[in-house]
Amino acid sequence: MLQVKHLLAEKGHDVHTIGPDAPVLEAIRSMAERHIGALLVMRGDELVGIVSERDYARKVILLGRHSDDTPVNEIMSPNVLTVGPEDTVETCMRLCTDRRVRHLPVVESRKVVGLVSIGDLVKAVISEQSTQIEQLERYIAG
Amino acid sequence: MLQVKHLLAEKGHDVHTIGPDAPVLEAIRSMAERHIGALLVMRGDELVGIVSERDYARKVILLGRHSDDTPVNEIMSPNVLTVGPEDTVETCMRLCTDRRVRHLPVVESRKVVGLVSIGDLVKAVISEQSTQIEQLERYIAG
Repeated sequence: MLQVKHLLAEKGHDVHTIGPDAPVLEAIRSMAERHIGALLVMRGDELVGIVSERDYARKVILLGRHSDDTPVNEIMSPNVLTVGPEDTVETCMRLCTDRRVRHLPVVESRKVVGLVSIGDLVKAVISEQSTQIEQLERYIAG
Repeated sequence: MLQVKHLLAEKGHDVHTIGPDAPVLEAIRSMAERHIGALLVMRGDELVGIVSERDYARKVILLGRHSDDTPVNEIMSPNVLTVGPEDTVETCMRLCTDRRVRHLPVVESRKVVGLVSIGDLVKAVISEQSTQIEQLERYIAG
């Protein structure tokens, strides 16, 4: 069963972060430059939230705020759902489905060691299926 | 092998749409109200694009536009990747991964008959795995 640590071995442990007091405009600029959909909000080493394109689309202009003078902490999701390196891909998929999130920070010994997105999970499922097919083909080919 | 038509039988054929000339502000308000991440852009019965929270986050304020006087067609993705009812969940997952999209309109006889999101695909994989486990358990229980 594929685990989070296997995904991180493949994609790397890099996480992209922003401070809670940075303006929202800086957050969306950073996401656009990196072609990603969310940033971890960190105060020093502490994970204090996650901010996504979704938070931006729903909590800025629609609530009368402006992206240049609203700090990230006003729109971030503060209760971050995290997973550990030993958690399975299936556990992560269930969390994404049940809690309607697309990004799961990976935490080990209270330290952030990576991030798994719903896209990474789908990629893992495909690659696992390809491996199974290859094994079957090798078996049939004898 | 699970197909798109099975997913639609489960989730329904409803699609949420907007016109190409509507202001972006109306699009993000509609997405927020419906708790969805994208709208199909339709001119009458014709699918002319798709507009997502991502398009909003990347192509409005960062490019100096304003959401109240920018029409949807200026930020939408005009080349929409679609699938058919007979396509498999695996095909859809590969499209999402390879082309980095999260939403696939379902088209049959040139008519839009539904929408499959990356979240729907993950849900389908989980439910398929649960079914397989149940079958194995029944088999073991004899």
